[in-house]
Amino acid sequence: MSADHGARREALRCLLVGNNVDALLVTDLVNIRYLTGFTGSNAALLIHTGDSRTSEDRTVICTDGRYLAQVAAQVPDLRAEIARASARRLVELALETDVGRIGFESHIATVDQLRGWTELSTALDLVRTPGLVEELRRVKDEHEVSLLRAACTAADRALAALLEAGGLAPGRTERQVGRQLEFLMFEHGAEGVSFETIVAAGAHSAIPHHRPTDALLARGDFVKIDFGAIVGGYHSDMTRTYVLDAPAAWQIDVYDLVARAQAAGRAALLPGADVVDVDAAARTVIEDAGHGELFLHGLGHGVGLQIHEAPGIGKLGTGTLLTGEAVTVEPGVYFSGRGGVRIEDTLVVRDEGPELLTLTSKDLTVV
Amino acid sequence: MSADHGARREALRCLLVGNNVDALLVTDLVNIRYLTGFTGSNAALLIHTGDSRTSEDRTVICTDGRYLAQVAAQVPDLRAEIARASARRLVELALETDVGRIGFESHIATVDQLRGWTELSTALDLVRTPGLVEELRRVKDEHEVSLLRAACTAADRALAALLEAGGLAPGRTERQVGRQLEFLMFEHGAEGVSFETIVAAGAHSAIPHHRPTDALLARGDFVKIDFGAIVGGYHSDMTRTYVLDAPAAWQIDVYDLVARAQAAGRAALLPGADVVDVDAAARTVIEDAGHGELFLHGLGHGVGLQIHEAPGIGKLGTGTLLTGEAVTVEPGVYFSGRGGVRIEDTLVVRDEGPELLTLTSKDLTVV
Repeated sequence: MSADHGARREALRCLLVGNNVDALLVTDLVNIRYLTGFTGSNAALLIHTGDSRTSEDRTVICTDGRYLAQVAAQVPDLRAEIARASARRLVELALETDVGRIGFESHIATVDQLRGWTELSTALDLVRTPGLVEELRRVKDEHEVSLLRAACTAADRALAALLEAGGLAPGRTERQVGRQLEFLMFEHGAEGVSFETIVAAGAHSAIPHHRPTDALLARGDFVKIDFGAIVGGYHSDMTRTYVLDAPAAWQIDVYDLVARAQAAGRAALLPGADVVDVDAAARTVIEDAGHGELFLHGLGHGVGLQIHEAPGIGKLGTGTLLTGEAVTVEPGVYFSGRGGVRIEDTLVVRDEGPELLTLTSKDLTVV
Repeated sequence: MSADHGARREALRCLLVGNNVDALLVTDLVNIRYLTGFTGSNAALLIHTGDSRTSEDRTVICTDGRYLAQVAAQVPDLRAEIARASARRLVELALETDVGRIGFESHIATVDQLRGWTELSTALDLVRTPGLVEELRRVKDEHEVSLLRAACTAADRALAALLEAGGLAPGRTERQVGRQLEFLMFEHGAEGVSFETIVAAGAHSAIPHHRPTDALLARGDFVKIDFGAIVGGYHSDMTRTYVLDAPAAWQIDVYDLVARAQAAGRAALLPGADVVDVDAAARTVIEDAGHGELFLHGLGHGVGLQIHEAPGIGKLGTGTLLTGEAVTVEPGVYFSGRGGVRIEDTLVVRDEGPELLTLTSKDLTVV
């Protein structure tokens, strides 16, 4: 199975017509990758509406000389321009060919970029059209799900290998554990890591986003590990919390609470569900236990070509879930100075109930 | 030695006065790190002019609740606001306190961000002031040089360890070599890698920016390795090209040519030198050998908190070098389909001649 970039561009053209523009200037590199497969570090894309054959013929990608061979290999189906100032070159081209109204990614383009384009000609008809490609990217096609699944598998296997190798032994540092887990992800097929691995031992586990330090893992600690692998550009995201000895009563209680909240959040992942309600499904469990103020963040977020994508699942989120969205569910309860637990999965929203992509056990595990 | 963020803010205030603004809204995270030490993923900074004591008291950083403890620890000397929409919150604050003319980073702020700010009040007096902090960041203080030196040392040691371990043996894949080198950088003190390591064997070495593949290293190949370590946020950048057997005559010739060009480029790194002349010093050597068209890119670039910073040293560059700038010198000659050589160092521009930070031998080395 390979990505059908042409189908994605066709879907985008429908959005463009709905937004009353004749073309879209895409300058976000992730959006360009989604629409064309190009992975270089400098590119712009001008995608035209109109009947499908003509509009594909006119659609043009621009990158610089470093990527001459790469753009030919990755984007054989589109015309390529070569210029260092890639977006500017496409605006010039649009002016030369009388494209008409051009949407641009106003959430990405800087104030100075826009200024440079508008200075080219008074005839330029630019319109703010933020977030159109991101809207398309919310729902993953099966090719994308297969890459997310592969990324989650690499993460699952790396974590299993870490545990099997005794990687969480007391006396090791958070940093050592993080590095080893990242190395193991590469060994199990990752091309990159989704973000710097969080390894938080003891009291550090109560810090939601803790950077690994030289602190030692100690007997009795919670160890919270939040990490992900990238495969084919797609990011996995998973958190597991272990305990380094027979758990104390408070540790059993907090773990059980977070696990119940997480299960409730997962169960609420249904097409059409309001993201505020999905968040509430998990949050209520924690609030009912009297710890609502210790769950400091939203319940989850979309994942895909970026680690954080739409939708945001939280108290301040808006909108409803769609079939095919890939999201995380990650409640946490953090006792400052003592320790905290977060449990996080990556899942795909399906009509028949969510598909779990991160398969590592969520039972309270003593290592 | 620790970073003197207060001194950097004072230097910035002089630039603000020169730009006729009463405050600067900083939204670039790297610039915020440079000015405050804060390393979180959401922040904005409003820095005021005026007499140094009052202006420090009024200067305020804003980040969200995830970074409550972190901002207190990393930025004890400034007032902190907590809000998710950090830049917007500081604009509101500026309006409440009648700040006056506010410069903003128009090369960073998006069109939609600016729109959101201007909608807050018609009294808001925002002025485009792109690149002010980047201008300051060009010249490194001795604390920054010490971090660059540490990053270059980590890279030197990792490469030595790779060679010693027989890491460049024929039959290994580019990907294996890249991963091992990255792992060794962490072992030798890196907190991250400057960019995805380039390992390019045989004909791949003729591709300036080649991503490692499963291609095997083979006897007789050039192997080009371009990589860097991050220490304390600062990036090293080095390229070495090895040959995997007694070199052929053409390999000796191209290596010698690039080495001579690189030495000429290094020798030209003097305060006051025009960046076009520095590029020409190396380029002329390659042009005189009849291969000017095979040197496809600029000679070098600044390095620091980012892997690519001002100044750009190339045919299209502008300006002159300053004492204390950290830059790369990296000519290359690429024979498409056969192989190529690039040799790159990171150096600091000094009055008495450049200080070399990447110390790995540049002699033609057979492994």
